[in-house]
Amino acid sequence: MFSKRPHSERSGHGSSGLPCRVWLRQYRPATAAQDALAAAIVTLLLIPQSLAYALLAGVPLTLGLYASLLPLVVYAIFGSSYYLSVGPAAVLSLMNMAVLQPLYPLGSPEFIAASALIALLSGLILLGMARLRLGFLANFLSHPVISGFMTASALLIAFSQLKYLFGVGGGGDTLPRLLISLWQHLPETSGLTLLLGLSALGLLYVIRTRLKAWLCRRGVSVFWAETWARTGPVWVLVLLTALVALLGLDQQGVRIVGAIPAGLPELNLPPLDWDLALHVFPAAVLLSLVGFVESVSVGHTLAARRRQRINPDQELVGLGAANLASAFSGGLAVTGGVSRSVANFEAGAQTPMAGIMTAVGVALSLAYLTPLLYYLPHAVLAATIIIAVLGLMDFHSLRQTWHYSKHDGLAQWATLIGVLALGVEQGLLLGVGLSLVLFLGRTSRPHIAVVGQLPGSEHFRNIQRFAVQESPLVLSLRLDESLYFPNARYLEDRVSALLAERPQVRHLVLMCSGVNLIDASGLDSLEAIRFRLQEAGIALHLSEVKGPVMDRLQRSEFLQRLSGPVFLSQYQALCQLDPEFTAQTLAARDAARPIPLAAAE
Amino acid sequence: MFSKRPHSERSGHGSSGLPCRVWLRQYRPATAAQDALAAAIVTLLLIPQSLAYALLAGVPLTLGLYASLLPLVVYAIFGSSYYLSVGPAAVLSLMNMAVLQPLYPLGSPEFIAASALIALLSGLILLGMARLRLGFLANFLSHPVISGFMTASALLIAFSQLKYLFGVGGGGDTLPRLLISLWQHLPETSGLTLLLGLSALGLLYVIRTRLKAWLCRRGVSVFWAETWARTGPVWVLVLLTALVALLGLDQQGVRIVGAIPAGLPELNLPPLDWDLALHVFPAAVLLSLVGFVESVSVGHTLAARRRQRINPDQELVGLGAANLASAFSGGLAVTGGVSRSVANFEAGAQTPMAGIMTAVGVALSLAYLTPLLYYLPHAVLAATIIIAVLGLMDFHSLRQTWHYSKHDGLAQWATLIGVLALGVEQGLLLGVGLSLVLFLGRTSRPHIAVVGQLPGSEHFRNIQRFAVQESPLVLSLRLDESLYFPNARYLEDRVSALLAERPQVRHLVLMCSGVNLIDASGLDSLEAIRFRLQEAGIALHLSEVKGPVMDRLQRSEFLQRLSGPVFLSQYQALCQLDPEFTAQTLAARDAARPIPLAAAE
Repeated sequence: MFSKRPHSERSGHGSSGLPCRVWLRQYRPATAAQDALAAAIVTLLLIPQSLAYALLAGVPLTLGLYASLLPLVVYAIFGSSYYLSVGPAAVLSLMNMAVLQPLYPLGSPEFIAASALIALLSGLILLGMARLRLGFLANFLSHPVISGFMTASALLIAFSQLKYLFGVGGGGDTLPRLLISLWQHLPETSGLTLLLGLSALGLLYVIRTRLKAWLCRRGVSVFWAETWARTGPVWVLVLLTALVALLGLDQQGVRIVGAIPAGLPELNLPPLDWDLALHVFPAAVLLSLVGFVESVSVGHTLAARRRQRINPDQELVGLGAANLASAFSGGLAVTGGVSRSVANFEAGAQTPMAGIMTAVGVALSLAYLTPLLYYLPHAVLAATIIIAVLGLMDFHSLRQTWHYSKHDGLAQWATLIGVLALGVEQGLLLGVGLSLVLFLGRTSRPHIAVVGQLPGSEHFRNIQRFAVQESPLVLSLRLDESLYFPNARYLEDRVSALLAERPQVRHLVLMCSGVNLIDASGLDSLEAIRFRLQEAGIALHLSEVKGPVMDRLQRSEFLQRLSGPVFLSQYQALCQLDPEFTAQTLAARDAARPIPLAAAE
Repeated sequence: MFSKRPHSERSGHGSSGLPCRVWLRQYRPATAAQDALAAAIVTLLLIPQSLAYALLAGVPLTLGLYASLLPLVVYAIFGSSYYLSVGPAAVLSLMNMAVLQPLYPLGSPEFIAASALIALLSGLILLGMARLRLGFLANFLSHPVISGFMTASALLIAFSQLKYLFGVGGGGDTLPRLLISLWQHLPETSGLTLLLGLSALGLLYVIRTRLKAWLCRRGVSVFWAETWARTGPVWVLVLLTALVALLGLDQQGVRIVGAIPAGLPELNLPPLDWDLALHVFPAAVLLSLVGFVESVSVGHTLAARRRQRINPDQELVGLGAANLASAFSGGLAVTGGVSRSVANFEAGAQTPMAGIMTAVGVALSLAYLTPLLYYLPHAVLAATIIIAVLGLMDFHSLRQTWHYSKHDGLAQWATLIGVLALGVEQGLLLGVGLSLVLFLGRTSRPHIAVVGQLPGSEHFRNIQRFAVQESPLVLSLRLDESLYFPNARYLEDRVSALLAERPQVRHLVLMCSGVNLIDASGLDSLEAIRFRLQEAGIALHLSEVKGPVMDRLQRSEFLQRLSGPVFLSQYQALCQLDPEFTAQTLAARDAARPIPLAAAE
């Protein structure tokens, strides 16, 4: 990230022109070979994953492949990350299902059209955010909320797949409903399906967690061990699909994918239904934000490994365009998924050209390979999904966050439980809302410290934490928060209480090192405090006011009403307001030199 | 406010027992006489005002008087302000009308029951806020938003009364609709009504703005001039009502109040309609917050004039109980109105006993005086309302706020225009929402300053604003914002950009004097920055970390991963990280002594 050569050119940073022009200009055959190899591996992985996420989203399985085609090409042109692989993702598919399940029957033409509409809206929302520079909105999904949301979504997804594993019907959009539905349908369980599903689950789990180490121990080189471990899931699918075909298990109750129409998607504008658009708009906003956050965080992480940077504003454009492309070519909201991007990176992709090559691979598969998927059992796809979402669960973070901050922990648990008990959208909104309310609640009762001078320095610290010297005439108060509408009235209360305890004080110096903003409400409060202090014969002063805050104060009449100047530092304020006190401390400082070393407080 | 004797006892501060016990214990006959005189004056004022606000709220006029009865007594027992006069208020009545007008015909039994339900909800909401210590929520109505809201509401109220002045029908809940409706109904204008209304308007306006000064110039004593000016509106009403009665104007198209049922209100539980309660709940929340803010700000102002304090938490209890009392005795949401409270204070009220006496006055009027109100014309009541809300309009603040801060000004204008164009609730929500979004948008791109040492001091300031000295090895960054979820990712971007420009830097010291919180997202970002810096061979340090922030950091593993201690001050960090640089500046300091005086930056 901080290498000495400027990386701005390579990373496509800067807003002049398309990011792809930078890497296309210096594209070399050697790079092409690396990209092609990565594309081949990723294509193999993408096919079952895309089918699985289409199943999860409630649309025909082909659409999953369609969504891994054109969006990849479009993102390669407009996106700023070199390694991101864009396509359907587990959480977005879950959200798609959660929004549309109550409205239309699964897989119906209306359901499909509505999914395309969500992709369209998501594309427009992301492009709109790029245009209006609203990328910061994604920050309101705080880390704990996102982590709680991902864990809960992964749990929800895993439990929603159990019905395919058991070969039964039913379903639901919350954990309780999923469990009840599964319990009710349990008598219909198809033993063969369950056996097949559990085998897939076991094999995939072992491949994921053990295969590489086992192969290495058996003397296989690291490269081949990794390649086998990475492509292992594909072989499991091939094996189990062949088994179903050979034994004719589909005649004995095992549900299979069946005929997948071959050929490339047609380009169509999704049908525009304004009422529906209005109805799904809030969900589309959330889905866009979640997709953006997931994509940017993967992009950042991968870029940092090669000391590159990604440009969040350009990511909005790339993802927005990819979603539009998806909407026009079949339709399922897309984002830069974690597992596919990591696979792309680790398979050695060098530039976004790998994404374009992957799209070609998917297109070839759509043209020629769909007959091979005929006997693929749903239970095996479900097992693929369950294993894929294991990586999204982060229970360690729950404990760690709670330990660090109860507020953050509360927001995280609320999101987790909200998603599981109320639904995806509701849970996420609950988490975001709660983290905002908790933050605003905290900021409305800021920390206000009485400070004194550290002996032998010009530094002022809290009298309750440090052995400091206080002037009897001057009360030094440090406000540890911006002075703005949520806390304006609180300062008035605290100042009056503190001064009531100190009848001899003649000057109040408000040390503003922690004040990053004084808004109109804060200014009103300062003026009220100044006026009331004046009535009581106490002068109000400010010190260490930062430049931007000072600029604004100078536009008001407040500074003229102050009885003295604004002091550059708290120390200068003391020098002028109580020279006798400062003379004593000066003597102490000269005695104390050399300066004591830093101490962890 | 800051008198040396502790006022806590007199002001009813402190949560032990009912606030009224404090003043009842020391109640003296002399005080009673003063309270009784104030009560007499306020009663006279309250009667037309209460009728007018009932008209505005869309309920039978008697209910306005009912709402000025029991709530006054209950507030006197539970409230913490000595001078607040509780009853129906212009803005609350407007909100009541705005919510219920689309649901039920004006004045219908359903409308009345729904008004009582709103009062009931408002009481429960306020008591709930007191119980859960949620009084801080009222702070989210920032000063500019409240001011814009008040101005717009006053305009809306004034325009909504024009139809009574013209004696026509119609109406509306936004300014455009009001104007269109008035235009359409203009041909029906009753000339006599208009004449009567305009006369009332003119007389009331002159009394309000000129009478006192005119009487003083004529040699009347200030006391009597004030009394005449204050009770003037009542005499206008008496005069014009008598005129209508004597000339029989009600037979010629002038609409009059008519028969008002005499007698005290019955105590009833308002009918509980859960669907309706759910529907009006959001409006009730807003109405409660607005009432609370209005009440607390009046209470604070009046208390400060006698160096007392009010207790916002106790105010929630007082107002909540008053609203419950109103709900049970007829029903109209109440608050401590500006004009009636100021009148109470200026008429010489000493304790809440004045409120109880006022209630007795209103009760007597209800029992004996209602026949006198028979001929009171609606147009005159409308003129009373228009004059009363003039005081709520503050156009000066619009200009001033815009000049001080564009963000605050934007929120204020949005509220103003929102209320006028969209409606009361919508406008207020727009303002609150916009001020939050603007705040969060700003806080997500915080000010980050590169700082250097001020020659001759241990103080560090922005290199772009001051002639300071910089160490070539150590980059000193001051983050002027808490490090939390809205801006966590922004810091990562800025740090990487700044270090890319300074290849020789070996240490980054993050000066945390402006960091008042590091939440879990901020901690993740710090850890990401530390890790990436380490990869680039740069050490990350922190300085001037405040106590509460340090406490929390010590609960994480971050401090152990730092390559050095947390420095007490930026100066100490420099001393240790670049001793050569500090030695030079030490020499400069000794030369520069005595310390230069403060300068306005």
